[in-house]
Amino acid sequence: MAKFIEDGTRYHLEDPCIAPNSAAYLWNKKMMLHMNCRGFAVSQYMDPEPRKYAHVPNLAAQSFMQPEQPYFSHHPGRFFYLRDNQTGEMFSAPYEPMKVDLDRFAFEPGLADIRWVVEKLDIELSIRLSLAVEAVLESWQVTLRNLSSQRRDISLIPYFPVGYASWMNMGGQYDAELNAIVCSSVTPYQKVTDYFKNQHFKDLTFLSASRLPDFYEVSQQAFEGEGGLHNPSALQQGGNLNNGEAHYELPAAIMQFQYNLPANGSDVLNLSFGPAKDKAEIKQLNQQYLYAEPEPQRQASEAYFAQAKGCIAIETPDQQFNHFVNHWLPRQVFYHGDSQRLTTDPQTRNYLQDAMGMVYLKPEACKQALLTALKQQKFSGEMPDGILLSEQAELKYINQVPHTDHPVWLAIVLNAYLQETNDYSLLQLRLCWADKPLEQSVFEHVSKAMQFLCEAKDERGLPYIAQGDWCDPMNMVGYQGKGVSGWLAEAISYALQLWVPVCEHLGEAALAQAFSQYAEQLNQRINHYFWDGAWYGRGITDAGKLFGISSDKEGRIFLNAQSWAMLCGAASGEQKTQMLQAIDEQLDTPFGVMMSAPAFTEMRDDVGRVTQKWPGSAENGSVYNHAAAFYAASLYASDEGERAFNVLRKMLPSNAEDELKVRGQLPIYLPNYYRGAYYQYPRTAGRSSNLFNTGTCAWYYQLVVEQLFGLRGTPQGLLLRPQLPSDWPKASVVREFRGASFDIQYQQVSGGSAKPISAKQLLSADEAKLTITQQADGKLLLSGFVAGERYQIRVIQAREDKASQAVAESALV
Amino acid sequence: MAKFIEDGTRYHLEDPCIAPNSAAYLWNKKMMLHMNCRGFAVSQYMDPEPRKYAHVPNLAAQSFMQPEQPYFSHHPGRFFYLRDNQTGEMFSAPYEPMKVDLDRFAFEPGLADIRWVVEKLDIELSIRLSLAVEAVLESWQVTLRNLSSQRRDISLIPYFPVGYASWMNMGGQYDAELNAIVCSSVTPYQKVTDYFKNQHFKDLTFLSASRLPDFYEVSQQAFEGEGGLHNPSALQQGGNLNNGEAHYELPAAIMQFQYNLPANGSDVLNLSFGPAKDKAEIKQLNQQYLYAEPEPQRQASEAYFAQAKGCIAIETPDQQFNHFVNHWLPRQVFYHGDSQRLTTDPQTRNYLQDAMGMVYLKPEACKQALLTALKQQKFSGEMPDGILLSEQAELKYINQVPHTDHPVWLAIVLNAYLQETNDYSLLQLRLCWADKPLEQSVFEHVSKAMQFLCEAKDERGLPYIAQGDWCDPMNMVGYQGKGVSGWLAEAISYALQLWVPVCEHLGEAALAQAFSQYAEQLNQRINHYFWDGAWYGRGITDAGKLFGISSDKEGRIFLNAQSWAMLCGAASGEQKTQMLQAIDEQLDTPFGVMMSAPAFTEMRDDVGRVTQKWPGSAENGSVYNHAAAFYAASLYASDEGERAFNVLRKMLPSNAEDELKVRGQLPIYLPNYYRGAYYQYPRTAGRSSNLFNTGTCAWYYQLVVEQLFGLRGTPQGLLLRPQLPSDWPKASVVREFRGASFDIQYQQVSGGSAKPISAKQLLSADEAKLTITQQADGKLLLSGFVAGERYQIRVIQAREDKASQAVAESALV
Repeated sequence: MAKFIEDGTRYHLEDPCIAPNSAAYLWNKKMMLHMNCRGFAVSQYMDPEPRKYAHVPNLAAQSFMQPEQPYFSHHPGRFFYLRDNQTGEMFSAPYEPMKVDLDRFAFEPGLADIRWVVEKLDIELSIRLSLAVEAVLESWQVTLRNLSSQRRDISLIPYFPVGYASWMNMGGQYDAELNAIVCSSVTPYQKVTDYFKNQHFKDLTFLSASRLPDFYEVSQQAFEGEGGLHNPSALQQGGNLNNGEAHYELPAAIMQFQYNLPANGSDVLNLSFGPAKDKAEIKQLNQQYLYAEPEPQRQASEAYFAQAKGCIAIETPDQQFNHFVNHWLPRQVFYHGDSQRLTTDPQTRNYLQDAMGMVYLKPEACKQALLTALKQQKFSGEMPDGILLSEQAELKYINQVPHTDHPVWLAIVLNAYLQETNDYSLLQLRLCWADKPLEQSVFEHVSKAMQFLCEAKDERGLPYIAQGDWCDPMNMVGYQGKGVSGWLAEAISYALQLWVPVCEHLGEAALAQAFSQYAEQLNQRINHYFWDGAWYGRGITDAGKLFGISSDKEGRIFLNAQSWAMLCGAASGEQKTQMLQAIDEQLDTPFGVMMSAPAFTEMRDDVGRVTQKWPGSAENGSVYNHAAAFYAASLYASDEGERAFNVLRKMLPSNAEDELKVRGQLPIYLPNYYRGAYYQYPRTAGRSSNLFNTGTCAWYYQLVVEQLFGLRGTPQGLLLRPQLPSDWPKASVVREFRGASFDIQYQQVSGGSAKPISAKQLLSADEAKLTITQQADGKLLLSGFVAGERYQIRVIQAREDKASQAVAESALV
Repeated sequence: MAKFIEDGTRYHLEDPCIAPNSAAYLWNKKMMLHMNCRGFAVSQYMDPEPRKYAHVPNLAAQSFMQPEQPYFSHHPGRFFYLRDNQTGEMFSAPYEPMKVDLDRFAFEPGLADIRWVVEKLDIELSIRLSLAVEAVLESWQVTLRNLSSQRRDISLIPYFPVGYASWMNMGGQYDAELNAIVCSSVTPYQKVTDYFKNQHFKDLTFLSASRLPDFYEVSQQAFEGEGGLHNPSALQQGGNLNNGEAHYELPAAIMQFQYNLPANGSDVLNLSFGPAKDKAEIKQLNQQYLYAEPEPQRQASEAYFAQAKGCIAIETPDQQFNHFVNHWLPRQVFYHGDSQRLTTDPQTRNYLQDAMGMVYLKPEACKQALLTALKQQKFSGEMPDGILLSEQAELKYINQVPHTDHPVWLAIVLNAYLQETNDYSLLQLRLCWADKPLEQSVFEHVSKAMQFLCEAKDERGLPYIAQGDWCDPMNMVGYQGKGVSGWLAEAISYALQLWVPVCEHLGEAALAQAFSQYAEQLNQRINHYFWDGAWYGRGITDAGKLFGISSDKEGRIFLNAQSWAMLCGAASGEQKTQMLQAIDEQLDTPFGVMMSAPAFTEMRDDVGRVTQKWPGSAENGSVYNHAAAFYAASLYASDEGERAFNVLRKMLPSNAEDELKVRGQLPIYLPNYYRGAYYQYPRTAGRSSNLFNTGTCAWYYQLVVEQLFGLRGTPQGLLLRPQLPSDWPKASVVREFRGASFDIQYQQVSGGSAKPISAKQLLSADEAKLTITQQADGKLLLSGFVAGERYQIRVIQAREDKASQAVAESALV
């Protein structure tokens, strides 16, 4: 059984074997912890670059988080062995490393903590993990309960492997003063300059406990012995830990606590685990967290995560969707916006889109991100590949490869910000350029970015792709300086069309006119150069070859080239019909819409690195949710609300065991992809990357607010034009908007037709201190509302396409 | 039980639990394989940089080989599960991953192969591993024997994990045409330039078999399941492998072979494992090796390793020592000289000293190495930090840090070359400089190197240490440009003294005079600035502080500063007595002589990175064998032959179980260190690094030849002056020298005193076509011999210091 509990604020998984790699994540501003249901963990913190305090047992590469992270028995994790000292029987919680069948297992990730409840041998182990809000610290609380009617002699042995920290120096010992196992290391380096750079490193990893351990061990090998982690030698035959140290040996923090529990008795153990610079810091952390009152800490932690509150609370017939949208989606949006994915040089497009999500949670954060990004813009209008968030930060990895799409996102994100806040004053703020000490307004910055996009074109007027656009690894289409991107042409057209009304709003009519004309020209070129008969091609290579077309054996159709053709208005109604059919036939799967198909199975060296990724993984034909979200956006923009919701809904696994098995993920976050290559590799299709870093969530949230529930801001007020699925008779939403609260009840009146409602349908509303006006395009405009007030509105929609009625009633509460 | 077998050409270990990490190694010019007795493996090949074809289960760092390499259940290895299909009973060979108690276990590394014999369930598994000579390929031969009198139904399941090769692309499948499991990957990269650089990569890893597998599996996880590697789900309850593939899943090459063996019947399976660029290469490798006659391959392999033949064959009362010196030591020397430690930019000092070892095996290799190194010398005389062995090679890691000792080794190695070969014509060869197209002779190159050493000095006339000397991580003594090295002063003095006779030999009297004077001045300065009352300090920091002295709490005494003071003649007899006492008291341990003591337990930032290494590991106070070999050299140079042999002998573990447990290594190679910090961390003292890359072996071999057996070349002939341990009544050696063979019988006549013989002792010899003359220093000179001839000589030494007699008899055979 798997399900949401506690009104959707917590998930409950009863079997560790259904989706062994399913996980939850916690974070604060300084760290992130990806915690697997079985006890494996991936954690890192910023110092200022990402660092680990628990390691694999070999010298690992410094890299980004891996999709489909493989786990293995010696992978870092947090485990608890439990032994009945009278019988010698043992099990381990949460499940690894012993993997003993449990009488009860519950993995229960919440918004602010992660819980397990495990029962075996008439012992219940309740484990709660949370993070300190301000420190890099895991707080563990373990409650042991004797479920039997006999007194029990029990050993509880937390086993927190620390792993291979350094070939220079690693070890560990028990420190009586700190009541902690303290593992030390020296981060490997060779150059004397690095010695000074590394001074601040937290090279200690510690596990401190709220009570004295009866025994301990710090040498992983001494603990494991010949028995193996599934049956450690140190715990066999009633043995106790040997109080051993690790001297340039793999360290692990292992403590043994003896409990003598009366019938139905219980006891609580608190542990702190994390990195530290020195013992003084451990002492201070112990004081501040381990020995401090737990309740204020719990409240602080809940308060931190409570910031992950979006601008809507929904109630629909789809309970799982409600829980996700009300709690888990804004949580994920907040994670992105608040932690910057724990990188010091986020890719510009990621940084901007993550900021877009914050529009609906904390618009000020979006504003600051826009300003940070624009300060790094060049005077030419070009945006850098990554945004540096600290002075020490450098452009790394993929940010050393030139991509051409970055300016596009400025208009898209700024549009979202302006729609939500109406804060046009942002456009007047003045900023310097990265390469010129000349202050110009945000409006001028973004206009220059748009101008830059318009100018980086070839003789056909098509935008160069250089070594990639949104699709990072599409790096060889244009690396010789000639190839162009069809998708980018569409994206520029779309961005310009979003920027034109802003220009108009500021009275920049000439600019508006120029951008508008250019967008129109682009749309013509898109149709001229990229339309392939039933869908749009993805780009034209350095050698002049259109690809992503019907004559291609692999990579015949790319989703983005279709979605954005709809978004930018290049596609006619007839073209849309053909495209949608092609998408349905070639890209749609039960697990979502694939980004391209067929996935490349061999290198195509005029397309690039994307074709070398495993077929169906990541950008090579997976159900790449970010692209799926773009597709949903384009469907909503094309009045295809039914399809659009279907796309969004498929991004979430259901609770059904069969589906959890295939997806390998719980419906508490959107992964960056599910495996695609549905027709090529059916066995693995649908499997989650289990990576929760993704631009998807910002778009998803925007679409739910502005399209599904149809509540989008304009300079005049709140525009109302829902596109609810036809099988929802009712739905409601509380929408926070510019300080006012809108409590909206939707009702869909059966009209005998399953067609989605159209924008032409009639709407009306009871009014109270609220002006509801119907616009020429059929949308309703709510205006005249007052911040601090709460409005109740009823919206009735008939689902027939003819004789439809929509009634909006509002009442001041 | 552990012992040498087959006349010392093979070792035999009967218990996999005595020294679990003990290992043997095989190599060819293209690859290296470090094979653990339990089945774990570290292997790499050159392409041209070192690469792996079997990986750990996570993204590993590209790094050098790690000391004390930790193993864990999912570490790469080569394993064989065996199941009795009638009973379902299983075990694994060699020992991991099941770690079932075996009825018989033998790990038997030989010179050219590695063997195991394992018995359990009345089945014998004989496993033989060898490497192809010309290809990157492991050849496995498994012989299954039914030891029972019943017909047996058996499954043999080779499990060769391939691991996490890439986040971009990894997978694998069975290829029927090749009868191989072929795992594919794309080496991760981001930049388009790397795509072109990586074109040649062997991104496939394959396991091909000599017969059809009945079943197979390529997904590691599908094989392991919930059971774990110690009890894989796929093999439980009589199940057979599922013929599964790995699709962006951890790949493993797993085949299941069914055998129906009659009573006492047997069968043989051959397997090939390695990397390949494409299937064509696998096909070709299969043809050339797997399907080819085994005997010629075995001969080729033996012929390759037979090149590892030194210039002596010894017979002493110390059988283990004989085996080591006759077979395993020259093998290790040859490994270094022939494979360049599998790096493309060996450190200059390593490269030169490895070449020194080749003097006694293949002098031509030493000559070529000297020329290669000198072509990279700067016109200033300075030597680079690393020698680039290919055009693509770059200076990496530690070679980017400036060290000041490199020219020293030129004189030392060239001296060894000239002594052995008398090939003074080498000195006339003309070479350009790295930074100047001017051809000058080898003699001029080396003289200029010596000149450079003489000039890089401060106002006191002491040589700068910059960011390290021989001791790489002693990087902060002089990083501000002021600190000096006491050891380097000694080493320069020593090098000059070796170079002076060469100058004289070439008639360069003025140069000889100048260098000789400078050496003398240096010796005075050494005594003036570094003598600390009972031993020499190691250096003077940037701030002017002498360290390595009695007032230091940690790092009070450094072995090298004493050894080289003896070598260079700076130390008087009285000083030597004091130093030896200090060494005995502070540095000597049952496992060898520590390089310094007490080991640093915290950073000393005027000494540097060495103080941050784990106390007792590597350069921070381990028994660092390279330094111990220097010490032995200095003892022989000081007529302390008894002590010297003791130092050499301690580098080899005995066969005793207790000692093997402590050392964790078999006596088939010299490790770069054993743990020191004997008084600080007694539990781990003596533990081997299990790294066989070390400059030790060249020195060890030289000392055995030239000092222990006292057979050193001069321009005039072969100088004879043994320093045998007093407890050897007899010993003999066959010495190959300049084309002639010397069969020498040593006899030590008991004279009542345990004192080592002195050079003053009388020696005489039967002569036949050989002139034996006694020199002024008491040494005997064998001259007038003819290449191609074999001479028998008897040497009798009395062990008393008075009335001693030495008789040398020679006879033309």
